[in-house]
Amino acid sequence: MAISMYQITIPVFTRALNNLSAILNKGAAHAEAKKIDPSVFINSRIAPDMFPLARQVQIATDAVKGCAARLAGIDIPSFEDTETSFPQLQERIAKTQAFLNSITEAQLEGSEGKTVTLKIRGNDVEFKGLPYLSGVALPNLYFHVTTAYAILRHNGVELGKMDYLGGN
Amino acid sequence: MAISMYQITIPVFTRALNNLSAILNKGAAHAEAKKIDPSVFINSRIAPDMFPLARQVQIATDAVKGCAARLAGIDIPSFEDTETSFPQLQERIAKTQAFLNSITEAQLEGSEGKTVTLKIRGNDVEFKGLPYLSGVALPNLYFHVTTAYAILRHNGVELGKMDYLGGN
Repeated sequence: MAISMYQITIPVFTRALNNLSAILNKGAAHAEAKKIDPSVFINSRIAPDMFPLARQVQIATDAVKGCAARLAGIDIPSFEDTETSFPQLQERIAKTQAFLNSITEAQLEGSEGKTVTLKIRGNDVEFKGLPYLSGVALPNLYFHVTTAYAILRHNGVELGKMDYLGGN
Repeated sequence: MAISMYQITIPVFTRALNNLSAILNKGAAHAEAKKIDPSVFINSRIAPDMFPLARQVQIATDAVKGCAARLAGIDIPSFEDTETSFPQLQERIAKTQAFLNSITEAQLEGSEGKTVTLKIRGNDVEFKGLPYLSGVALPNLYFHVTTAYAILRHNGVELGKMDYLGGN
């Protein structure tokens, strides 16, 4: 059984975003039940100089749409980063999922060895597809999903590890 | 260029643990500089019913040694979960790294299709090697490394995303 780039990208990204969506839904439901202004959660941070919840969701979606597009050799869909509510964040996740669903196995075939260029602090940095996925995109995705989870947990939302790991 | 299970496990695990080790070193240095009892950090949590820092490190190491051993079809090294200090956590990471370094490419060859059995809440759950890696082991690893990072950030330790993503 050969391992394809598709297998270790699209379904993995989709699952992480599905879990992020479910985590945000629990946050929104908790805010409603406790009569907490949802923007308190949306703007909450783990540290004063870390990004708030909304930005965590934006970057998580950026990580996967950027990775999928670069590996497929197509333009990265650009979103405006203006989300300020749970429904808007869900819409961003849904738009990202729709983009991921549009990527075919053929588009990613052989992309493990493809050269991709990232702008990092103003400099162009080149990666091969597989080390980019394993060393940048996936850890980055999980960093921001976990931080979104941690922000909501810190604020009393009842979440467990299975909300993060999810099924499929 | 074919993708091997070795490529997407051992070097990825090693890099995440190297970064975790560096993050903990910054935590220890911050405690020393600010004359904070290191056990305050070791026992700190993001939420009262989340695990403290020490346990995050234990589970992160468990995630990778369990995955590597199951895929290789060898016994999982057992550690006692008694660490209560930064040096002891570093020692646990070093022991895990030594185990990862002992795994050869040949031992993991073809393990993407291998059946592995996990005990989840008392039940045996079967996975194939690749979905186990992509859907359980990797997200779990990054969850606990990110949570360790978040605990220290929340406590004022100066860390940035590059400490988490690391080089190699």
